[in-house]
Amino acid sequence: MALTMFDAVFPSVLRTLGSLDAILDKATAFCEARKIEPTVLLQYRLAPDMFALTRQFQIVTDQAKGMASRLAGVDVPAYADTESTIPEVKARIAKTRDYLKTFSASQIDGSEDRKISLKLGGNEMTFTGRDYVFGFVLPNFYFHAATAYDILRHAGVELSKRDFLGAVDGFTPPQARS
Amino acid sequence: MALTMFDAVFPSVLRTLGSLDAILDKATAFCEARKIEPTVLLQYRLAPDMFALTRQFQIVTDQAKGMASRLAGVDVPAYADTESTIPEVKARIAKTRDYLKTFSASQIDGSEDRKISLKLGGNEMTFTGRDYVFGFVLPNFYFHAATAYDILRHAGVELSKRDFLGAVDGFTPPQARS
Repeated sequence: MALTMFDAVFPSVLRTLGSLDAILDKATAFCEARKIEPTVLLQYRLAPDMFALTRQFQIVTDQAKGMASRLAGVDVPAYADTESTIPEVKARIAKTRDYLKTFSASQIDGSEDRKISLKLGGNEMTFTGRDYVFGFVLPNFYFHAATAYDILRHAGVELSKRDFLGAVDGFTPPQARS
Repeated sequence: MALTMFDAVFPSVLRTLGSLDAILDKATAFCEARKIEPTVLLQYRLAPDMFALTRQFQIVTDQAKGMASRLAGVDVPAYADTESTIPEVKARIAKTRDYLKTFSASQIDGSEDRKISLKLGGNEMTFTGRDYVFGFVLPNFYFHAATAYDILRHAGVELSKRDFLGAVDGFTPPQARS
């Protein structure tokens, strides 16, 4: 069965979004156990000029909804970027997962040669669907997903890479250091 | 032109390896300017039970060489994991890039349905080539690449996401916070 755009990215992106949702449950439990105000965690960052945790989740979901929309050739839904609590961040992830699940393989497959244009920092970028997904979306998506994980690990939340990877093809990888 | 395994992953993985090599040059300059012993940076980590910087680079390159080898059905070359200086880590990245460049598209294409088995933590995992690459290799590869970046950013090295993404399809993305 030939490789298709849908199969290459939708399952893994959806799974990582699910992992991030579960990671936020652990972050919530951590805040409760340690009597930490969740807002402090959401504003935590690895360096003063890096984005805080909330923004990492916003960008991860932006990459996912942008990918699905642009590959299918439909408008990208706008999100307000107003999340200030963990349940609100979780709701954004849930909304994004639900949105991705509305796409069928037939809307996505063949998009490897679709011309994709987006504005970034005032510059218009034009990609093929292939370069957009594999050279732009996935590096960005995983960069911000991993940085969200790293911020929480640095803050003391007990996570392992298993939490990040989730169940791989029905198999849950063994506990591993990251 | 239909999507192929080679086009989906080789260019972006090679580009990220190049980005990491350039990031290490900035880390070297940072150490010189700040009179920091590079070994301290290589042993830096975000939490006491997370891997140090050197290990992040080792895993990134392991994922890349493992991917190329397994998709092509050849033995995975063993690396000694003895790097203790930045030039040695850079040499490992260079060796991995050179190795990936020995593969032609014809060795990789069609591997989406190849059965891939690997041992992880004593468990045998079996994937299709598709699930192995998109559900295991890329999440791991970018996870450790981003964590390497995050460790260096946390240590004070001046980097931006542009350093991580590298040039996208000939276009270098504008400076952006991460």
